[in-house]
Amino acid sequence: MNNNIRINKDRLWSRIMAMAEIGATDLGGSCRLALTEEDRKGRDLFIQWCRDAGCQVAVDEMGNIFATRQGISHERLPIASGSHLDTQPHGGKFDGVYGVLAALEVIETLNDHAVETQSPLVVTVWTNEEGARFAPPMVASGVYAGIYDLEYGLSRKDFQGVTLRQALRSIDYLGDFPCGHNQFAAFLEAHIEQGPVLEKNCKTIGVVTGVQGTRWYKAWLYGQDAHTGSTPMLGRRDALIAAARVIVAVQDIAQRHTPDAVATVGYIDNNPNSHNTIPGKVELAIDVRHPDLRIQEVMEEELRTAIAQISDREHVDYELVRTVETPPVKFDDSCIKAVEYAARELGHEFQSITSGAGHDACHISKAIPTSMIFVPCEKGLSHNERENVKKDDLAAGADVLLHAILILSE
Amino acid sequence: MNNNIRINKDRLWSRIMAMAEIGATDLGGSCRLALTEEDRKGRDLFIQWCRDAGCQVAVDEMGNIFATRQGISHERLPIASGSHLDTQPHGGKFDGVYGVLAALEVIETLNDHAVETQSPLVVTVWTNEEGARFAPPMVASGVYAGIYDLEYGLSRKDFQGVTLRQALRSIDYLGDFPCGHNQFAAFLEAHIEQGPVLEKNCKTIGVVTGVQGTRWYKAWLYGQDAHTGSTPMLGRRDALIAAARVIVAVQDIAQRHTPDAVATVGYIDNNPNSHNTIPGKVELAIDVRHPDLRIQEVMEEELRTAIAQISDREHVDYELVRTVETPPVKFDDSCIKAVEYAARELGHEFQSITSGAGHDACHISKAIPTSMIFVPCEKGLSHNERENVKKDDLAAGADVLLHAILILSE
Repeated sequence: MNNNIRINKDRLWSRIMAMAEIGATDLGGSCRLALTEEDRKGRDLFIQWCRDAGCQVAVDEMGNIFATRQGISHERLPIASGSHLDTQPHGGKFDGVYGVLAALEVIETLNDHAVETQSPLVVTVWTNEEGARFAPPMVASGVYAGIYDLEYGLSRKDFQGVTLRQALRSIDYLGDFPCGHNQFAAFLEAHIEQGPVLEKNCKTIGVVTGVQGTRWYKAWLYGQDAHTGSTPMLGRRDALIAAARVIVAVQDIAQRHTPDAVATVGYIDNNPNSHNTIPGKVELAIDVRHPDLRIQEVMEEELRTAIAQISDREHVDYELVRTVETPPVKFDDSCIKAVEYAARELGHEFQSITSGAGHDACHISKAIPTSMIFVPCEKGLSHNERENVKKDDLAAGADVLLHAILILSE
Repeated sequence: MNNNIRINKDRLWSRIMAMAEIGATDLGGSCRLALTEEDRKGRDLFIQWCRDAGCQVAVDEMGNIFATRQGISHERLPIASGSHLDTQPHGGKFDGVYGVLAALEVIETLNDHAVETQSPLVVTVWTNEEGARFAPPMVASGVYAGIYDLEYGLSRKDFQGVTLRQALRSIDYLGDFPCGHNQFAAFLEAHIEQGPVLEKNCKTIGVVTGVQGTRWYKAWLYGQDAHTGSTPMLGRRDALIAAARVIVAVQDIAQRHTPDAVATVGYIDNNPNSHNTIPGKVELAIDVRHPDLRIQEVMEEELRTAIAQISDREHVDYELVRTVETPPVKFDDSCIKAVEYAARELGHEFQSITSGAGHDACHISKAIPTSMIFVPCEKGLSHNERENVKKDDLAAGADVLLHAILILSE
């Protein structure tokens, strides 16, 4: 292994900081919701950097971006690496951005050292990974991998009813390249852990062997609007009381299955949401995750039982619908081994780890041999403006990515 | 008592239906939030009717409307009656509107029968009674009565940060008549009960002797935004879980003091409100009511204890602020007697009742001898698009208002 090459950690850091300026928030994070004007600016900046590095850039029908560096061989499929540039409403600087710019840094490092690879190399940016604007998350990598069809992807709507197709067109990123038609020999995604494990164990590199399963649910509780002052407690049908009991029940269900289980209500829409009207309708979004599909089934059953009992007790009607399912994922052995080998050869402390978060790599792994590289983030804090990562850890992860790619493209 | 005069119930009904058309909702209610374009249209329509009835119309600095019918005497202060035209987001046809149009109907009935009164008569429309757009509710009647000063009233902001002054100007209802300078000998407000008591007791008329006290609170819960997938349950600081436990605690506190107590969380603002981010900040509006000030103190203490314990348990920080206080109200004996006498003479089934809801009359009673007349509403349902009242009950209440006014203006 040609392990004397190292990435340029100052260039990588300065680019992450430059990207973070687009949609920068007061608390040091970024707000670049998918396909907003900020997302467009981030994409434009990335593409400029890719062109400066001599890459050819293509955009597909889902707005996914592919920046290609030619290889020596004309028979080989490319090795791809990347992540996403969209963020949560109160997102951090590193989530997604690191994986995209680490892959670009690999190409620039190879340029600096005039190293040619047998396989072409491709940096990818996947559209709307976060799901903060358009549900489901990772929808564009899902279309790429054939998990969703194109029309489903393009017809997703944001809370204002704008479709993903309309949003792509509005920022000029509705490409004509057929989504999923460009094949890769392998896909590697570098990412911050977004959890506390590596930091707690003093490891620099997480060799990601798979991803826990995620299920999203929508729950609607239907009560009766009424005046808060003149409606006695007895006989009320308060949808928000029922919703509050469901939120507490979701926490109880997760705690019953710790340490591996997590479950969260992140979104609530209360109607009419007026100080002196008893709420008549509430919508909740529920996020339930576990690495074991059988436990996910048990947790779903517990959720269905809880909402039925609560609705009965509070005299409200309800609906509960599973809206998203991402089953547990097992990554490709050869990709895992390449990452592990690179980490060991470079002398970094590493461990095997299962991802707690969903990533584009989950979907991509259905179509292409895939694995991921994690680096620790401070206190495991992510989806937060205070998300923070050590410069040296970012460099270590990018070096592992560089050498794993060199191994796979030999 | 000249009790052969009766109001025109078809005219009253058709006018209520005409007003309901402005901001009409799919489910048969109305949405005329204070000082919106719909509110402007409702005010314009009312003023047109008043002018057609020969009244002089004035608008004060808070946008309150006064339509005056001259009296025989030039010494006497006017007898005033009215309510409000603004509604909840999902409001009904009758809340407020009935009291305004019943008072107008009294004047038109006197016109029809060429009856002159010693005292001038004034129909009033009070601005922003509901508080759905600008908190506190009843702010303009509060300024009229000297409970709030003018600058406080005009500087109230809606959720978009628009001040009440700006909103008044935008619909051309920022009058120059000094708020509170026009005095009245008495004020009577006809209103639907907005509760189930009269219907349950088969009474047509509620002789309202007073109003229960209302306290509004704002609660803020501060946790930590984090990723829903990769943040273990242990160590989370989920602001929405804490808020949910507060919502349940508010219900428990009210139930501890039933039947007289009511307490409700009607408003919640969850941040960042994203499917896969643990909520970091939640704001709640809490509405607590009881006819006895001492019990209100006890309930407030129970609320402070509950939120402190919950925040400690869920590892979040909190603030709790009392934003609005309307103490219990006792109406004027002579006004109460006039209403009771009229109801008895007209042969309606009636009972004494305490209002569960706040009304402009609560504030007005601080400055002017005041009472109210209630009519039953179907199932006690109000602040709801399905709010419904019998045509004959509306007529009965307006007849009682007519004759109580005649008694007071003798």
